[in-house]
Amino acid sequence: MRLFILGGDGFVGWPTSLHLSAQGHEVVIIDNLSRRHIDVELKVESLTPIASPAERCRAWREATGKTIHWETLDVASEYSRLVELLHAWKPDAVIDFAQQRAAPYSMKTPRLKRYTVNNNVSTTHNLLCALVDAEVDAHVVHLGTMGVYGYSDTGSAIPEGYLNVEVQGGDGQRRSVDILHPTNPGSIYHATKCIDQILFAFYAKNDGMRITDLHQGIVWGTQTRETALDPRLVNRFDYDGDYGTVLNRFLVQAALGYPLTVHGTGGQTRAFIHISDTVRCIELALRHAPRRGERVKIFNQATETHRVRELAHLVHRQTGCPIDYVHNPRNEAVENDLAVINEQFLALGLNPVRLHEGLMQEVLDTVVRFKERIRRERIPCVSAWTRAHDTQLSLPPAIDDALVKQPKLDALSCIGELAS
Amino acid sequence: MRLFILGGDGFVGWPTSLHLSAQGHEVVIIDNLSRRHIDVELKVESLTPIASPAERCRAWREATGKTIHWETLDVASEYSRLVELLHAWKPDAVIDFAQQRAAPYSMKTPRLKRYTVNNNVSTTHNLLCALVDAEVDAHVVHLGTMGVYGYSDTGSAIPEGYLNVEVQGGDGQRRSVDILHPTNPGSIYHATKCIDQILFAFYAKNDGMRITDLHQGIVWGTQTRETALDPRLVNRFDYDGDYGTVLNRFLVQAALGYPLTVHGTGGQTRAFIHISDTVRCIELALRHAPRRGERVKIFNQATETHRVRELAHLVHRQTGCPIDYVHNPRNEAVENDLAVINEQFLALGLNPVRLHEGLMQEVLDTVVRFKERIRRERIPCVSAWTRAHDTQLSLPPAIDDALVKQPKLDALSCIGELAS
Repeated sequence: MRLFILGGDGFVGWPTSLHLSAQGHEVVIIDNLSRRHIDVELKVESLTPIASPAERCRAWREATGKTIHWETLDVASEYSRLVELLHAWKPDAVIDFAQQRAAPYSMKTPRLKRYTVNNNVSTTHNLLCALVDAEVDAHVVHLGTMGVYGYSDTGSAIPEGYLNVEVQGGDGQRRSVDILHPTNPGSIYHATKCIDQILFAFYAKNDGMRITDLHQGIVWGTQTRETALDPRLVNRFDYDGDYGTVLNRFLVQAALGYPLTVHGTGGQTRAFIHISDTVRCIELALRHAPRRGERVKIFNQATETHRVRELAHLVHRQTGCPIDYVHNPRNEAVENDLAVINEQFLALGLNPVRLHEGLMQEVLDTVVRFKERIRRERIPCVSAWTRAHDTQLSLPPAIDDALVKQPKLDALSCIGELAS
Repeated sequence: MRLFILGGDGFVGWPTSLHLSAQGHEVVIIDNLSRRHIDVELKVESLTPIASPAERCRAWREATGKTIHWETLDVASEYSRLVELLHAWKPDAVIDFAQQRAAPYSMKTPRLKRYTVNNNVSTTHNLLCALVDAEVDAHVVHLGTMGVYGYSDTGSAIPEGYLNVEVQGGDGQRRSVDILHPTNPGSIYHATKCIDQILFAFYAKNDGMRITDLHQGIVWGTQTRETALDPRLVNRFDYDGDYGTVLNRFLVQAALGYPLTVHGTGGQTRAFIHISDTVRCIELALRHAPRRGERVKIFNQATETHRVRELAHLVHRQTGCPIDYVHNPRNEAVENDLAVINEQFLALGLNPVRLHEGLMQEVLDTVVRFKERIRRERIPCVSAWTRAHDTQLSLPPAIDDALVKQPKLDALSCIGELAS
């Protein structure tokens, strides 16, 4: 297949591009490099020293003999050029990662709330509009988020996109219908993914567009088989309070002896997936496109759920790193249960990588290798969901290295047995 | 109350501004004059010769001694100035009409699809973001549309915003919950109103914002008590294929002897409201704001439902104007039933103006007065929902005046009795 990968320079986009190129697909990355610009803005870089786009493509060619094409383009603002590229390449599928994807960043300032809405909505809508405009019948595969469902305890497992309900009919009889699962976004970022769903449903209905939306859990890990082939192919690794996902951030904190910052009680249950499963899921979704005229196909792209404080305890037990319960900057339920149905990917053959299978060690190895690059003052999340939360936020803790118990990294190799 | 009225120059915004000023509220109109620009773009003007903003305000002062303030501002792009105005005026409520509101216009070209999404989403989000930013605790009253629900026949009356459903709990028991009614937008324009709902729900939950969303039916009529006070206060009247609403368009066609163009079978049932009820509903909504922390308050702002072909037959019987069944440019159900619950406004004291109460004559009087201004080639809707619909669209019919039976306008004064 010929594939456009929007946002192919990012944390999930890059390993996906390599994986699909390795599978023999013709890959065209389209990226505006916004994530690299945000690194500069936030004064924190990827823990791993990621190579330039040109160097990444060169390294891939040298390692595998395969070519990845690259177009620097802002999908949110360069509509005409997007249409030109669709005409020129006529892709079979477009995989869309081109969105601002950090919840804390989306809540940080009015400017960033507005940037997130404008960028994410315009990107999604420009893509859909351009496909109709260019008359390209490509399958759209979009990265959504489990966060569209909200995390309130409904007492039952979250179905894959559609919820079966009974409603009262005009004749007084109750009847059963499938509806798009009601949304309950927890941040502006999450709200944009709910908005995407509305646009997808409309274009699927009105234009017969074939669309798959992948409601992904929190990604952890960093390397995949392909990114490990050459140091210049290394994937980005975010550990800061805005872009660092919770487990990755704990592992960085452990490696530094920086107390594991748990928000609130840590009673939040979240869904997780390892980066190498993410790329496999996207491959499976590509192979199983909906038919023209079919409703949007929605997968829950998550393999397990964990309570945040349990993850902290797990890392604490292995490394000795203490836990610091800090005020939660998010406006959310203190504790929640969460169960997620992910039958579709399992049925398609996904064999999930679990948290306890030793991959935490690989992450720690990466952290230790690049430890000198860490800016520890960027680790806490200082993005407040409301003004009231802001005033309660503690400042980044001052760390006295002498008082912090040094992490016992060696012990982590046995984490698999302990956690299982 | 001190009120900001965004889009206060428009078809609903202007009579609402006058009505609320007449009630003693301090009114600040904020408008970017986009609707007047679209007149130029579409090469068709309001049937009624609307005065300039300055002249409108002057006439209002002369007629009533009251002042309406006016700020020309694009809410979608001039965020900083919006925040400044909120700081300066500290309004008690903001009424938001500042949206591109024509479904056919929103489907006309890729450029207009994108304009509608960008303009409408940015306006809504900028307003919400600015209110939090400026720390102004204003009640937001927004004009939504009945179109968010879709018009598919669910067999039961459409509730006001929230649908009671039974879902399967984790324990196997079914339980009853209220959810935001599932959306099924019929155009890009309607999709933006569904998107608004997501943003409103988020800001109500996260920031405790007090928001009322009014899901309005199709407005008919043109004048209210206040717009009739002076010719310079006249409200705009759209009759073209993009902005003209169905009943107003039929009345213009009848006055011209231009066959009444019914899309498809005319079996579409729609909800209607007269312009003077619209302004009263907004006044009622203002007086009954939700409490801080309460969910978004949603009203169905419609007073009656009619099948489109029944409206055409009604106008035909009175005027003799023939009916022309043309290809439907919209991608929608051929026939649908529709029942709408509007108990909330009735409970608050709304005494609806019905279609059969003689107001059609007033509209016809207006049309006849300004008949010379009509550009008949702009009457048909030539905006196609998909390319397939485009190729089936008939061109604007050539009209031979000699063949068209002249409308019997006098007969319309008895339409009330006949239709009841």
